[in-house]
This record gives sequence, structure tokens and C-alpha cells, in this order.
Amino acid sequence: MPKGFKTAGIAAGIKKNGSKDMGLVYSEQPAVCAGVFTKNRVTAACVVLDRQRMAAAGTCRAIVVNSGNANCCTGETEMADAVAMGKSVSDALGIEADHVMVSSTGVIGQRLPLENVKNGMPALIEQLSEDGPADFAESIMTTDTVPKVVTRHGRIDGMDYTVTGVAKGAGMIRPDMATMLCFVCTDIGIGQPDLQAIVTRANDRSFNRITIDGDTSTNDTLLVLANGTSGVYASSADQLAAFGAVLEEVLVALAKMVVKDGEGATKLVAISVVNAASDADARKIADTVANSSLVKTAFFGEDANWGRIIAAMGRAGVVFEYGRLDLYFNDVQLLENGIYAGPAAEEAASAVLKQSEFSVVLDLKTGRGEAVVWTCDLSIDYVKINADYRS
Amino acid sequence: MPKGFKTAGIAAGIKKNGSKDMGLVYSEQPAVCAGVFTKNRVTAACVVLDRQRMAAAGTCRAIVVNSGNANCCTGETEMADAVAMGKSVSDALGIEADHVMVSSTGVIGQRLPLENVKNGMPALIEQLSEDGPADFAESIMTTDTVPKVVTRHGRIDGMDYTVTGVAKGAGMIRPDMATMLCFVCTDIGIGQPDLQAIVTRANDRSFNRITIDGDTSTNDTLLVLANGTSGVYASSADQLAAFGAVLEEVLVALAKMVVKDGEGATKLVAISVVNAASDADARKIADTVANSSLVKTAFFGEDANWGRIIAAMGRAGVVFEYGRLDLYFNDVQLLENGIYAGPAAEEAASAVLKQSEFSVVLDLKTGRGEAVVWTCDLSIDYVKINADYRS
Repeated sequence: MPKGFKTAGIAAGIKKNGSKDMGLVYSEQPAVCAGVFTKNRVTAACVVLDRQRMAAAGTCRAIVVNSGNANCCTGETEMADAVAMGKSVSDALGIEADHVMVSSTGVIGQRLPLENVKNGMPALIEQLSEDGPADFAESIMTTDTVPKVVTRHGRIDGMDYTVTGVAKGAGMIRPDMATMLCFVCTDIGIGQPDLQAIVTRANDRSFNRITIDGDTSTNDTLLVLANGTSGVYASSADQLAAFGAVLEEVLVALAKMVVKDGEGATKLVAISVVNAASDADARKIADTVANSSLVKTAFFGEDANWGRIIAAMGRAGVVFEYGRLDLYFNDVQLLENGIYAGPAAEEAASAVLKQSEFSVVLDLKTGRGEAVVWTCDLSIDYVKINADYRS
Repeated sequence: MPKGFKTAGIAAGIKKNGSKDMGLVYSEQPAVCAGVFTKNRVTAACVVLDRQRMAAAGTCRAIVVNSGNANCCTGETEMADAVAMGKSVSDALGIEADHVMVSSTGVIGQRLPLENVKNGMPALIEQLSEDGPADFAESIMTTDTVPKVVTRHGRIDGMDYTVTGVAKGAGMIRPDMATMLCFVCTDIGIGQPDLQAIVTRANDRSFNRITIDGDTSTNDTLLVLANGTSGVYASSADQLAAFGAVLEEVLVALAKMVVKDGEGATKLVAISVVNAASDADARKIADTVANSSLVKTAFFGEDANWGRIIAAMGRAGVVFEYGRLDLYFNDVQLLENGIYAGPAAEEAASAVLKQSEFSVVLDLKTGRGEAVVWTCDLSIDYVKINADYRS
């Protein structure tokens, strides 16, 4: 863990199966705080609350998270319950209420069992430790099959700092298990506006580039706390860029772990669009291909079905010249200037699709725009998991 | 069949399994022709050719269709093969080349077996009959499990006319089985601009309101031929509106048949958004809900999972007030002003979801905008069909 942070995770009885369901991150010093939240029009109370607190204070001492209940769409009790959950932490730790961020993930539409939250708080605080976020990572899981923790180190002027991120999420949304959460601690020192700019950019190049099923949730949250305890302070453009690169590495690694753990996913596929007219065009095409059910089922079937990729590209709302298109699976070229390379190439491509990770490269040979989006396959288990989940 | 039309359908060996794969529609008199084509950026040669011919001639004598091969993405041979397919019809029937429309549906990227088309032509023409389009409907099928034919009658000034439509399509796209085709014959007389306007509107209220998997194809085509043989001519606003209503009825019935026959589909679901700020807002919400993989898997699981519907609404890009939302499955209300009605209502809603057809009604209580979109569930068989198709 970065210096000056403690974490904990316990079972408080919010999940019916007895798994860990309440987690806490605590910074011994006030930490600069930045974040990115869901753009979904329907947002949970915790997202509204965290947005307010971040705007008002800009610093943070603790993040409290529960899994098993999203505390969303429950009417008038929703905000009061989120505030009460935060207050049970600020009271116990003797810190300001505004310095506690609150996150919830789980079933929508059922009231948060606040008694469990309150009753669990002494044990949660008792368990706070510098040993690493294993229990915390487990406590925020829903349909995740593995906890997701990534740590990277950076160095400024000969002094080290540490960045540790913890994420959960196994459908890009499970609106009823809602959904993608990520909490990052670092002991670097940094100004709030700088941190927010870096977090926004790194998020755009990581979590905003993954898709499991194209849905987004009411509770999606990324929070980054920087407490300065390492003694390293990033202020010059070079220092900020170097920290940004380390943070991006952490977020990209976590984002890929989320896709790999996607519901029913068996493959992690990078959709890479190069030489488009603009980055925006490249992104539109990559997104459309990455979200196509037909493309994703073909991945599951290990079928180098380039026709489906072409058809998805064609509806991306981007003008491109089909007669210039080169298409590759890893380094196997299947189309050159839109012309099919034949059965031998397709056989080689089929071998690529049998791998658990591979790339689809779409070269438009038009300009210099590019984008990569990570997706997974659409499997029989995805349908089973999502059809059976609540029953 | 409407008067003055003949149809045929035969097996010409384009499909490897010996099923019917070549069809012909023939009008004894030149027919006014209108149509709507795919908006996909990648379009098959037949679509390009038909667009040209419709713009140049505006009238049509024959439509020739093959299934089993999309004649798309095959490079320089593509257009020449489409033209040759049309020419084999115009030569044999002694009509102008420009008066033949050409459609193809099937695998992308393989050259059209033109010899089969030419060798099959005498038998196809020999088989032309006024008996109804059963063979033709069968000859254009790909993964369809049932042929799709709808006939309706109208009356103007005491004289009857007939509208018969034939459609195919079982994925809103199978880019490699590409895809939705619909051919309509009517013996009404009508001007070309009037027909085009009516076709565009009726298409927008039928085929543009269905979704199976959100994908669109390179070959999507709707063609309507009106040959005037009934002696009825529609010219006044009332007559045109009456004909438009009959045509819309035919197209809506065919569109619903396409969704019901959707790959792996077990349920036909109407997503109905009412009292939105505008029709456009209502449409965006209905589209987003109808295309959500999580909503569609919940339908398959017969799970009244309103949380997923809310989350999909929230990412539709439309401003709405969650606190006013009423949500129904048929007439069972599950949300009132955004508040969950409780387990008894959910049990009643679950009974609705066990039906093979039902509606989701989303009442925004804001304005007068509305839209309905028909969708199907996302089943294990959808994944199986699309993962295994080419192997």
C-alpha cells in the first residue's frame, strides 16, 4: 500500500451468502481527491453525495463501500441512508462528515440495510491495516470471480511514490448489481486541479475504453486519493506527465482485468483502429465493433468472421472507404484494400482466435486517427448469468 | 396475389443444402417502383444497382433474388455479377435491363456462383405463376425458420386492390447472411413520388421499429411495386392515406414476424414509451432499452428486472425526471413516480413475462411524445446460432 493508507473489508450481513460486503479506505492525513462518475441519467444517491462533497471539500479522509445493495431507486430514504452510512464512519473515526466518500454496489430498488452497516462499523474500523487491500478488494465484489488489485511505483527527484488501485465490475453494467467501482490510493503530493485533470484523462484511456455489454450503471465511480505522505510532490509538467503515465498504467491494467472477468467472458480482444481521418472517427468504429453482439458471438465461436466486423464498421456513422481497408487478426492479414485474402489466411486467423487474448486491427489508410477499445466475447454463460441472476 | 403479378422460387444449387435459393417476381405491366435501402456504409453491389435503376427508371418489371450468397465484398467482380444476374432475367423475359431489380442475401465475401444463376433461369421463368408467393417466400430465406407472407386488401371508390408482402430476416442483421429483405406487390395505381413517400413513412413505422441485435446489414432492401392492374388509382390525400395505412399494416405484420423469428428468440416484446417531451426522445429511450443485452437476457430469464430497464433509459441521451416515471409490464404497474410497487406487483409482472408476447410501458409524464419499438429476448440459442454459424 502507499504510505499513510489503511484498508479493511468485512462481512456485515448485507449479502445473504455471508461474503464480505463492507469495505473501508482510510488516509491518516487529509488526501486530495479527484474522481469520475457515471454519466447515466439515473444516478444513485452515493454518486450525488460524492460529487457534492468533492466539489465542496476537494479533500477526503475515508471511502466507505458496501456491496450487495446499490441503494438506488428507493425513493426518499435513498439520500438519507447514504448520508447515514457516511456519518457512521465520520463519527467513529472522528473526522469531518464531508471528508467521507460513500459507494454502494448491488441490487437496485431495495432499501439499504442500515442496521447492518452500523453494526458492522466497529469491526470494520478495528480491522484497518497497512497490509494491503486484499480484504477491501474482496468486500466490493459482486459477480466478480477474482479480486482486482494493481500496484505500480514511480519516482520523482530520486524519491519513490506508490499507486495502488482496486476495482470491481464484471458486467460493464449489471444495473442491478451496479457496477464498476475503482478506488486508487497514492502517496504522491499533488494539487487538486492537476489530479482531476490527470484522472479524467487516464480514465478516458482505460475504463472508458472497455466494454462488456455496452450498458452503463447508476453507480459507476472512480475515486483517486493522493495524500502526499511519500514526501514527493508533482508540480512541473514533466512530473505531472510521469505520474499520469503511472496512473494510466494502473487503470489500464485494472480495466483489462474487469473485461477478462466479464460475465461469461472467455476472451479479451483489443479492437484497434488505425489511420482513420480522426481519433474520434477511430473511436466510433472501435466502439461499434466492440459492442456488436454478432462480432462478440463470433469471437466466442472462434470464428474469424470478418463480414460481421465490416458490417458493424459500416453502421458506425463514420465515412470511410471500404476499398482501402486492411483487416488483421494479430499479424494475420485477412483483407487488403477490402479484398479477402482467401482460405489460407482465414485458417491462420482462426488459430489466432483460439487464443485467450488477441487484437483485431482495422487500418483505414486515410489519416492519422487511432483508438483502441478492449472487449470480450458474448458467450452462452453471459446469457445464463444474466437470465438467471435474480431467480 | 395482386392482379398482374407472377412469382416463382426454385433451387439453383447456390445453397449447398439443396434448399430453394433463387426467386423471381414479375409484373405483366411496368410497375411504379419505390424502395428503402440499408444505411450501412458498406453496401452490396445489388443495393447500389437498384438505387441507380430506381432513380433512372422509376418503373420495374421484375425482381430477381438469390439467397445463400450476398455478392458483397468480393471486389471488382461484384457489380459485374449483379448486372449479369439482372441481365439473365431481362434477356429471358425480353424486358429492359433497367427494369430488373436485383437482390442477394447470404454469405459475404464469396463470389456469386453465376453459372448456377444462369442455369437456373429457364426453370425459374417456367415456374412463374399467379398462385401466390409461397415458393418465392421460401427461396429468399436464410436462417429464417418460417416463410413470411402477408396479404391485405383495400378499397377505393368501391373497387378493391390487394397488397402482398414477402419478407426474410432472422437477425436484424446477419452481416454474413445479409439480411432483411422485403418485397411488396400491389395492383393499385399510384404516382412514383406518392409511392416513395408512403413507403418511406410505412418503413419508418415498421421495419425501422424492430431490432433483434442492433446490427444492420450491407444488403437490407425494401422494394414496393405498384402496377395499377386493379384499375384503382390513388391520387387524393384521403386515398393516399388509406393506401398508406394498408401498406403499413402489411409491413408491421411482416416486421413483427421477423422479430418473432429472430435468431433464438422466444418472446416478442413491445417497448412503448409514452408522454415523453418529444417523439424523438421517446424513440431514443425505446431504442436503447430494446437493444440492451441486459434487458434482453432478463426477458429470456422471464425476470421482471426493472432495474436494468431504468439503467438503459438512463444512458439513452435523453433528459427525463426519474421521480415521475411509471413503469408497467402490460397492465401491471411496477413503478409509480419512480417508486417500486413491491413484491406482489413483481409477482404479477413475472406472470406477464412468461407470455410469448407482452409490452413494457414507460410513462414519463412530461409531454406528448411517444414511440414503440419491437424487440425479442437474447437467448442461449442466439449465442449458439451466431457462434456456430459458419463452422
